[in-house]
Amino acid sequence: MIDVIAFDADDTLWHNEPIFHSTESQFAAMLAAYHPAEWVRERLFATEVKNLGHFGYGIKGFILSMIETGIELTEGRITGAEVQRIIDWGHDMLRHPVELLDGVRETVESLAGRYRLMLLTKGDLFDQESKLARSGLGEYFDAVEIVSVKNAATYRAVMQRHDVAPERFVMVGNSLRSDVLPAIEAGGHAVHIPYVLTWAHERIEESELAGKEFAVLERITQLPDWLHNAGRASALTT
Amino acid sequence: MIDVIAFDADDTLWHNEPIFHSTESQFAAMLAAYHPAEWVRERLFATEVKNLGHFGYGIKGFILSMIETGIELTEGRITGAEVQRIIDWGHDMLRHPVELLDGVRETVESLAGRYRLMLLTKGDLFDQESKLARSGLGEYFDAVEIVSVKNAATYRAVMQRHDVAPERFVMVGNSLRSDVLPAIEAGGHAVHIPYVLTWAHERIEESELAGKEFAVLERITQLPDWLHNAGRASALTT
Repeated sequence: MIDVIAFDADDTLWHNEPIFHSTESQFAAMLAAYHPAEWVRERLFATEVKNLGHFGYGIKGFILSMIETGIELTEGRITGAEVQRIIDWGHDMLRHPVELLDGVRETVESLAGRYRLMLLTKGDLFDQESKLARSGLGEYFDAVEIVSVKNAATYRAVMQRHDVAPERFVMVGNSLRSDVLPAIEAGGHAVHIPYVLTWAHERIEESELAGKEFAVLERITQLPDWLHNAGRASALTT
Repeated sequence: MIDVIAFDADDTLWHNEPIFHSTESQFAAMLAAYHPAEWVRERLFATEVKNLGHFGYGIKGFILSMIETGIELTEGRITGAEVQRIIDWGHDMLRHPVELLDGVRETVESLAGRYRLMLLTKGDLFDQESKLARSGLGEYFDAVEIVSVKNAATYRAVMQRHDVAPERFVMVGNSLRSDVLPAIEAGGHAVHIPYVLTWAHERIEESELAGKEFAVLERITQLPDWLHNAGRASALTT
């Protein structure tokens, strides 16, 4: 039996990666006179990963990494106007409408009250709170946890803070690396709902999945049935 | 009687504003050929305030605001190398050593175990967690709350989440605007420990203090005595 359902937010409840992806395309187009798009994307990713330990996840760090990459790839010839355009993309991203994935509102609404629902997302505190507010889903969640990193220790701390036994906790998300594997490592259950785009940094080697048990659903609307069957079949007592 | 002591972090437990202030001075020096330092600081502050609603508090937003101000004040003539220098200042700020204020470690250590201690700070989640880890104070706190904004609603939510009655909660901090006034508005107690520098955005009109009761201490080492006397004299039942 499950007591607490924790949902990831970006690309689980609302679209996120396409916003980054489309900004990256604009960035590659801006630097087209200097380098092919593939190389621009590759260097940007390298800068992002280098900066993760300083900046953490989120749009502000992404913008700063784009500016750094732009300076590097133009050997400093990038203009003030171009840097301003990059910053303006950041402002656009930060105020981008929050677009729910299909079926999210009905599903979350139907589960609220029957389970304790939690939003459990990593990233920029300010930005994630703002998106939750704009999503209109805030009222359905009994708890909101915005964390800087999602590893097994994070999941253990969250379960403890909310007084839920691991076997009564399920994490629902699109990332094998951040949602599925560490939740399982912490003793919880996990439901993977893949999203059409995955940021390179969230990808894992398939070998890391060896011996792991979790459910894969095509869409979030299948979650209530899965919860129902899992409870009935005791399939959760892995 | 007090159960929970919540401490602000920046400029209450460790030095922070001087790091921003010295970076601002470097920024003003960089633009000295264009504008007097006072004007650079004034425009930077205006940009920061304009961007607060998008960026929230923290170093990454500050760096982005410096870049924007640099582009504006040079009418786009700022060079890639100069933008990179601004970003490098950001990296320096993010890895700046965490320097505790005098008496902080002894005071926090002496209160731990006798009260429930909480760290209650606004700002960038990733950055504040990193500073807490580097401060070496982490073990003394029963709870850590990093919030995007500190208003009366924030304090009410925190008190409720930690199951403490407002009259048994005291907020200790250097900001009248973020620590003292909203904690009192939420029904709690407040201890103000002014810091030598205050960011313009944290300043308030003196008239806003009319009718408010709170303690002002010169240094954090006076806090145990204040708690002792307050408990004895029932001075807390305001």
